[in-house]
Amino acid sequence: MEELKEKILREGVAIGTETVKVDRFLNHMLDMRLLEKIGARLAESFSQCRIDKILTVESSGIAVACMTSRYLGYPPVVFAKKAQPSTMTEGFFQAGARSFTKGTLSMLRVSEKLLSPGESILIIDDFLAHGEASSALTDIVSQAGGRVAGIGAVIEKGFQGGGKRLREKGYRVESLAVIEKIENGRIFFS
Amino acid sequence: MEELKEKILREGVAIGTETVKVDRFLNHMLDMRLLEKIGARLAESFSQCRIDKILTVESSGIAVACMTSRYLGYPPVVFAKKAQPSTMTEGFFQAGARSFTKGTLSMLRVSEKLLSPGESILIIDDFLAHGEASSALTDIVSQAGGRVAGIGAVIEKGFQGGGKRLREKGYRVESLAVIEKIENGRIFFS
Repeated sequence: MEELKEKILREGVAIGTETVKVDRFLNHMLDMRLLEKIGARLAESFSQCRIDKILTVESSGIAVACMTSRYLGYPPVVFAKKAQPSTMTEGFFQAGARSFTKGTLSMLRVSEKLLSPGESILIIDDFLAHGEASSALTDIVSQAGGRVAGIGAVIEKGFQGGGKRLREKGYRVESLAVIEKIENGRIFFS
Repeated sequence: MEELKEKILREGVAIGTETVKVDRFLNHMLDMRLLEKIGARLAESFSQCRIDKILTVESSGIAVACMTSRYLGYPPVVFAKKAQPSTMTEGFFQAGARSFTKGTLSMLRVSEKLLSPGESILIIDDFLAHGEASSALTDIVSQAGGRVAGIGAVIEKGFQGGGKRLREKGYRVESLAVIEKIENGRIFFS
């Protein structure tokens, strides 16, 4: 998606070789005109699939998932909550996801009441990096007895391998911009 | 908003005399058709105001703010991040907000780069209870040198007084459903 790539080059901030900050339009402030187009484009990628629900993670996935839902006939959006690992497991599907950027482990949790066996679930997130969050969401869908219709991401950091691993597992993964490398403060797309 | 009130009565869960859980359509799973109407209605309430940006809090405010933006000509949405209080203050506007439900204190933070002096800011949230979050957001707008165009909430718990206090301070507050009391598992609207 050219407009997105141009936006990343113009307003994204490359940090080191691993991180790109997109706080000005995707992670902290939301460019709603762009998000509308992102939602439409992600929806288009999965328009031939049955989508009963969209599953994402708080907080940055929510806006993307909502905009995508609008263009798929308004399936409900469920967002997994991030919690510290604890022994409180009753009533939740849960799966762990490391954040390499933050050096933390989050437990992603979804109330058991919100996903049902047999549902076809589209996973949506803002970033696909090492694939920890998306992978945890596929785990949650599986715990619920559903199936993953596909995985849609706004920005994939190709060099961190998450997308590759998920595709190798057989998931259909669609990313609107794939970053090949970050070098000397510059961002290169595949 | 009648449809919202009916939804709260049908799918909300009253807990004790203070809490109503709306996980099935507003806080964990999002009913996107309803959110579309909620956004349109909140936008209508403030359609005569200049709105440069919408400010909300992660996570549950994001979807409401996004849907409202769509009907106001797409002003950017900024969501404050919740962090544990710390001494790291550089580059952020911040204000504390207690959660009476959770018994916690959060620091709401917005990057200084995302709000500018002179901007007219609409504050949007899912719940208006004791008014701690909205009040913290008004504080952040003031730190940025902006002005508050108004405060829009989906559900106001009138008996907790936050809305009253904010109105007494001179803010325009619009809530789509005002709960007067919660008693014996039943929810009563004003």
